[in-house]
Amino acid sequence: MELSDNTIERMCKVFGHLSSERHGKKFVSSKELAKAIGTTEYTIRKDISFLGICGYTRKGYEVNSLKEALGSKLNLNKRRKACIVGLGRLGSALLDYEKFQEDGFEIVAGFDCSINKLERIQTQIDVFSDNDIKEIVAQRAIEVGIIAVPASRAQEAADNLIGAGIKGILNFATYKVIVPENIIYLNLDFTNALRFIATKVMINRSKK
Amino acid sequence: MELSDNTIERMCKVFGHLSSERHGKKFVSSKELAKAIGTTEYTIRKDISFLGICGYTRKGYEVNSLKEALGSKLNLNKRRKACIVGLGRLGSALLDYEKFQEDGFEIVAGFDCSINKLERIQTQIDVFSDNDIKEIVAQRAIEVGIIAVPASRAQEAADNLIGAGIKGILNFATYKVIVPENIIYLNLDFTNALRFIATKVMINRSKK
Repeated sequence: MELSDNTIERMCKVFGHLSSERHGKKFVSSKELAKAIGTTEYTIRKDISFLGICGYTRKGYEVNSLKEALGSKLNLNKRRKACIVGLGRLGSALLDYEKFQEDGFEIVAGFDCSINKLERIQTQIDVFSDNDIKEIVAQRAIEVGIIAVPASRAQEAADNLIGAGIKGILNFATYKVIVPENIIYLNLDFTNALRFIATKVMINRSKK
Repeated sequence: MELSDNTIERMCKVFGHLSSERHGKKFVSSKELAKAIGTTEYTIRKDISFLGICGYTRKGYEVNSLKEALGSKLNLNKRRKACIVGLGRLGSALLDYEKFQEDGFEIVAGFDCSINKLERIQTQIDVFSDNDIKEIVAQRAIEVGIIAVPASRAQEAADNLIGAGIKGILNFATYKVIVPENIIYLNLDFTNALRFIATKVMINRSKK
């Protein structure tokens, strides 16, 4: 059965929540999961039923088997290789973003068009010129590309990554790039998140 | 009538899409909007109906009046002030994130606990010690706080912001902070976005 994008997104969030769980709890309720990822208990139970996992009355789901099932269904137990194009402040911050590693993503290369920047950057990750994208992506079997270039260069970066065989792109540039249908593409726009917060703050205030 | 979080989130995205529209088009269809923000045409039409705006058959919605209505309903026409706590690589990248300005958010202060970092940072934005959060937030009427500190200091940063009267928090730290019910809080986890992309790439591949 094919999972909807919304189900996949929620399952990824549940997996993330279970992975970040620090209490070492054995069981988790659909109520807790619903609250953690911002949905309803019913939706959580429906999503999890697709995994063939049953919860125990009162106790909820067994954390380890739920995580195991999600990991194997979503193929998240495998480590995945990613690269970053654009090593300005945001790109170099992402290069060393500790949580990618913890969560099974390995940043194996960074790219920038400025030789000057490549020479000065301080990081443990190997960095290369944009011209080497094709070669390095193939050599290191990189699956996901992260774009952190200025808006004016975002489309070029996407085209380079796709040309190199990358099938999934996470875009931090403030420009929506155009990609072929078969490419998985997500735009991370911080401003929408800020807008959402500002609007909710305003609604909350007017309630009083 | 009270709007659901999902509706608010989608409306913020529609507003963002219309704002980033570079073609200067006069009309936009529910189909285009649905595609741009990843939902169905039906949902778009339902959301927009809450604004009391009608589309024209075939032509769609008039871009300017839709933007105007969204802006006033969501209170997005007003400029809002935000601050950033934590001026490491990610924090200082966010400090100069051009799109915040374009989109009506003004970063009016940055905070860090390291005097060393405050002295060395290169930015046009005023930066202060963490000890000044309360004073500056009040003085400059800051509404939204952005957290970009390491995980171990995220809760402290949130507590400081809330203590200073901030009602909305966007958290980039890799630690889910605990906030009172009346605080609007959003956690921006890059890894969930990567997970979603990696999973979809895998599903696409197995379809072939």
